[in-house]
Amino acid sequence: MSNKRKVAILGATGAVGQRYIQLLQGHPWFQIEVLAASERSAGKKFKDACNWIMETNLPKEIAEMPVVNADVESVEKAGDVDLVFSSLPGDLAGPVESEFAAMYPVFSKASAHRMEKDVPLIIPEINPDHAELVKLQQKARGWKGFITTDPNCSTIQLAITLKPLMQFGLRNVVVTTMQALSGAGYPGVASLDIIDNVIPFISGEEEKMEAEALKILGNFNGKVVENADFMLSASCNRVHVKDGHLESVFIQLNQDPSLDEIEAAFAKFKGEPQKLKLPSAPENPIVVRHEKNRPQPRFDRDTGCGMSVVVGRIRKDRIMTFKYTCLGHNTVRGGAGAGILSAELFVAKGLA
Amino acid sequence: MSNKRKVAILGATGAVGQRYIQLLQGHPWFQIEVLAASERSAGKKFKDACNWIMETNLPKEIAEMPVVNADVESVEKAGDVDLVFSSLPGDLAGPVESEFAAMYPVFSKASAHRMEKDVPLIIPEINPDHAELVKLQQKARGWKGFITTDPNCSTIQLAITLKPLMQFGLRNVVVTTMQALSGAGYPGVASLDIIDNVIPFISGEEEKMEAEALKILGNFNGKVVENADFMLSASCNRVHVKDGHLESVFIQLNQDPSLDEIEAAFAKFKGEPQKLKLPSAPENPIVVRHEKNRPQPRFDRDTGCGMSVVVGRIRKDRIMTFKYTCLGHNTVRGGAGAGILSAELFVAKGLA
Amino acid sequence: MSNKRKVAILGATGAVGQRYIQLLQGHPWFQIEVLAASERSAGKKFKDACNWIMETNLPKEIAEMPVVNADVESVEKAGDVDLVFSSLPGDLAGPVESEFAAMYPVFSKASAHRMEKDVPLIIPEINPDHAELVKLQQKARGWKGFITTDPNCSTIQLAITLKPLMQFGLRNVVVTTMQALSGAGYPGVASLDIIDNVIPFISGEEEKMEAEALKILGNFNGKVVENADFMLSASCNRVHVKDGHLESVFIQLNQDPSLDEIEAAFAKFKGEPQKLKLPSAPENPIVVRHEKNRPQPRFDRDTGCGMSVVVGRIRKDRIMTFKYTCLGHNTVRGGAGAGILSAELFVAKGLA
Amino acid sequence: MSNKRKVAILGATGAVGQRYIQLLQGHPWFQIEVLAASERSAGKKFKDACNWIMETNLPKEIAEMPVVNADVESVEKAGDVDLVFSSLPGDLAGPVESEFAAMYPVFSKASAHRMEKDVPLIIPEINPDHAELVKLQQKARGWKGFITTDPNCSTIQLAITLKPLMQFGLRNVVVTTMQALSGAGYPGVASLDIIDNVIPFISGEEEKMEAEALKILGNFNGKVVENADFMLSASCNRVHVKDGHLESVFIQLNQDPSLDEIEAAFAKFKGEPQKLKLPSAPENPIVVRHEKNRPQPRFDRDTGCGMSVVVGRIRKDRIMTFKYTCLGHNTVRGGAGAGILSAELFVAKGLA
Repeated sequence: MSNKRKVAILGATGAVGQRYIQLLQGHPWFQIEVLAASERSAGKKFKDACNWIMETNLPKEIAEMPVVNADVESVEKAGDVDLVFSSLPGDLAGPVESEFAAMYPVFSKASAHRMEKDVPLIIPEINPDHAELVKLQQKARGWKGFITTDPNCSTIQLAITLKPLMQFGLRNVVVTTMQALSGAGYPGVASLDIIDNVIPFISGEEEKMEAEALKILGNFNGKVVENADFMLSASCNRVHVKDGHLESVFIQLNQDPSLDEIEAAFAKFKGEPQKLKLPSAPENPIVVRHEKNRPQPRFDRDTGCGMSVVVGRIRKDRIMTFKYTCLGHNTVRGGAGAGILSAELFVAKGLA
Repeated sequence: MSNKRKVAILGATGAVGQRYIQLLQGHPWFQIEVLAASERSAGKKFKDACNWIMETNLPKEIAEMPVVNADVESVEKAGDVDLVFSSLPGDLAGPVESEFAAMYPVFSKASAHRMEKDVPLIIPEINPDHAELVKLQQKARGWKGFITTDPNCSTIQLAITLKPLMQFGLRNVVVTTMQALSGAGYPGVASLDIIDNVIPFISGEEEKMEAEALKILGNFNGKVVENADFMLSASCNRVHVKDGHLESVFIQLNQDPSLDEIEAAFAKFKGEPQKLKLPSAPENPIVVRHEKNRPQPRFDRDTGCGMSVVVGRIRKDRIMTFKYTCLGHNTVRGGAGAGILSAELFVAKGLA
Repeated sequence: MSNKRKVAILGATGAVGQRYIQLLQGHPWFQIEVLAASERSAGKKFKDACNWIMETNLPKEIAEMPVVNADVESVEKAGDVDLVFSSLPGDLAGPVESEFAAMYPVFSKASAHRMEKDVPLIIPEINPDHAELVKLQQKARGWKGFITTDPNCSTIQLAITLKPLMQFGLRNVVVTTMQALSGAGYPGVASLDIIDNVIPFISGEEEKMEAEALKILGNFNGKVVENADFMLSASCNRVHVKDGHLESVFIQLNQDPSLDEIEAAFAKFKGEPQKLKLPSAPENPIVVRHEKNRPQPRFDRDTGCGMSVVVGRIRKDRIMTFKYTCLGHNTVRGGAGAGILSAELFVAKGLA
Repeated sequence: MSNKRKVAILGATGAVGQRYIQLLQGHPWFQIEVLAASERSAGKKFKDACNWIMETNLPKEIAEMPVVNADVESVEKAGDVDLVFSSLPGDLAGPVESEFAAMYPVFSKASAHRMEKDVPLIIPEINPDHAELVKLQQKARGWKGFITTDPNCSTIQLAITLKPLMQFGLRNVVVTTMQALSGAGYPGVASLDIIDNVIPFISGEEEKMEAEALKILGNFNGKVVENADFMLSASCNRVHVKDGHLESVFIQLNQDPSLDEIEAAFAKFKGEPQKLKLPSAPENPIVVRHEKNRPQPRFDRDTGCGMSVVVGRIRKDRIMTFKYTCLGHNTVRGGAGAGILSAELFVAKGLA
């Protein structure tokens, strides 16, 4: 047990923080050492500070742990820590993560630092080489630690499906999302707003998708990441689903592969995490389903323990080249699972 | 009362049939004379044959009316009829509607005859001139009556928003729908299929949208309808909403109008029903909302008594020319309301 | 217009406050003069201070009205006011309502003053004579105005059905509620808490029901209200419904009336508001339905414009005397409609 | 593998049938040999006959199995069978189960035979001795096999909580249920009936609960089961929840135990399945939760792999003795899990 890396979770009481706690139970490489959150929670036992919304029970030893304030001094007083997962709210994340990064590797689910030039925006199956950016970051900022970031939840699942399409000359991506309630955190969306309803707007979401995908799929030339050479347009909606973002995607390619070739590209896709057999890596980053009415959030979100993206309804398009539907678990592959897999990659590469 | 036209409703016990009954209460031009349905219902009182699912109470005089079988002989025995609304299921509608059309004007919500060359596919605000097709139809088929059809519910609301865009050179339309449960009729979608879920497939819906829009917006040259010269691609989803289809639309135009010009085109759009002041015509076929998170099904579906299409989130697009969200009440503007408005148009034009 | 009474609404931006605004549109006796809310909203236009959650549009003249702070000085500066509706949150309501009551008739939906000895707890159909308590209150407290209160939403609908049962010797009432989301205000219940779920707890609700019903149905002897002589036990649950509380009720009577007698007692029940033809009085306080599966929230909550309680499933019981199901619109009959009807009663009786 | 008992599932394509298949995967004592269903499905592969609605994937070897007609001849032609699980619809179950019982032990989830004098109505933790009734049944009917039945889903979870209360002199039980959608089978409840709604009626459910509980908790004197000496009254409602029936229970006892004594009685309760360590027996038949707002369907239905009943909100009552809320997974403990546990009991006792 004892040579596991000790981790602190910043924002531990929130929806993604809770998912970190859940997914790290029994993790072979990491163990939870410190739970940190905002001042309002600091000083309480976790069970008193947190409205636990996972369907699995709150682990007993976590329940009794103290919550400390999310600053370096408080965290260090609470325990020795090797690395830091941050799921702080966007407005807090910026300066707090920087403070920690001076000393620790910080794996951030927040959007604050994602688009900074020397900060990697990582999906381990897609751009593991971007991880090297942290070396430049450390040099430039004089940090012992570093910040690396995970993309927005709706971007992650889409980007994973775009990667195997790059070989066909990806030109344009038009996507409409139907996003789950858990994507808004807790308490998040009021029940009176969503019962018998769809909300066709998620603040900042379209902009994030349109910008982040280009960086993720871009080329790291050793100095900077050059944006990928395609365009993406998104329309984002909130629907009455607990977990699992569904996306209707229209793709324009430079080439004209057959549907069989496209499907094969999805199904065969593997990345570094699969080669390295990282503990949280799904066997298949993309699972293709052939039923005419799948993927569906409730039935498919737990594919690959929530780490696989499920693709279905691949068909030719009369305007673009082809269209399909994809689904990912937004708080696992799109949330805490993304951070954990990223940390596993950094550890495996000797970077953390 | 007595010089109202007497109507028969075929498929009166179904979801759209019930909406016909509801909307025809107190109608100034039409009164319900005969209720017809399948053999299973024939011979019963309406209240015993029908599981009434409207939120308004079943009108007492309708409750006691007999249901007759949906064939000409049974309907004629039950009462004198001037015109016929049909909301029969697709598989029955074809031959039954033809039988009635030999004698009566038939306004059909079914898809059976929509794409036939001499059958109008009418949205009164868009293509009232297509109504003239019924004269050719009568001549060719030797009928005293005729069949005219209403488009698919998700097509209607979209087509209404496309009409004012034609002036800018409409080239491509990419649309993802989030459609309401009532669109599947009753009992329709099982609750176990849709709770905490989205179903990314509606049988035949994408094909209907892609074909019908071109006919509706096409040009009637006095002989045939020439398809409009744009392309449409759809991805259709069922969401957990009772009424009101929401659609995320991406539009490519030949011209590059400003957002103000586009909005003005939507807001100012009026058609023949508004000029003729037809009883069911909304004051504005399209209502533009400026809130960043509208239209929403629960809040906007009853705009214009369910006959207006609500448009919002008009914004520039990086791939297409611009994008927006539209919403329509699928069983009013997209259902029985479409049939009634169409019948009003035919009456006003002296065609029925 | 001009001899309408001018009203202030305290807590105007909340869910019940919005319902007051909606229901007072076009009211023959009252017109909205001042909108007051918490400091956070004060100084803004109503449309900017309020997240309007009614399905009808925010009336334009209301949208532009300023919101003032909910204290006497601010309200008086904003306009001349004849009476005050309060839907302030429970913790604020106590002292603020007292401040206003020194000068104005205050009709309160808050629980703060309900159980005070000299404060009426009114349901106009049940205990209009309790209104006289305000004279004692004014004398005792030296107020020009007074406070009168409306019961808890789940109590109101139940108490209305209990009133006609008093004649049979009401002994025991066991009730389980299934309460709507709007009962928790806005934002209220988080969607993540209620999707695919029931919450078997509503803070303070059971205690309120168990205490308030006895006072409402009690006897005012000219000095105090003597609690009614029966017992009530409640178990309260929150279900996934927007509006309309449903209650399963088991009743023990001293007598053993037939089901027909019970039904007749429900159906014939009328009260003072019906005799006085108060503007908001429903024709029938209780509507009995005979379908085996009614009342249902979505179909029956708007009965009598939301002011009637709907009763169904009246049947003999093997332990108690009989059982039934009742339903009421919690934000109309159980909310703003209760306050308005109460104010109409006071006006008609010359008390306000 | 090979000395597992081979089972046939009658009604295999239905909602409970599918749950049988899911729960029997990897079962140590039973293996699925034959899948039988109605004529409509017979002759197809299971994957083509069945709309699989479990969230886990349809096991591959099951998918390819043929479905045969649910009669003895067809089942025997399809394979050697040791025992039979029946989840046939109520109207079919009666004669078909009798036909099979002439030869095989039949474990039935249908209501057809439950109240017959020589048919056990078993909950293994409560009345394992009633299993002996099958010997009388075999003698009386001349059968080699037998029929034993599981109670109605809403009865099972309630009866389990009543058993430990018998020691205090159980007199009266008043219960209101809030039942899940899956209790109605598939397709079951139409989404249009339940969205934003509660249905206060489930056909036959109250009668079943009121009759079955007395038999289950009754005394088997070696010849007949004498009904238990208490009374039960139920009011049953359908709510918008996928799985998990919630029940608000009011209990009148002859004695007046403290809440601590009641809680201890719940928490310590164990039965024969726990002593025998039957494979599907939960460690605790009843799990008591202390949070003020639990049990909740979504969070607690999977307790004990869906085989535990969860009790909460235990509190004194002013009319009855005390009240509480209980929850059980209606298609596991209340469905297929009940049948499997019962079969395990019969095997362990040498009766099957």
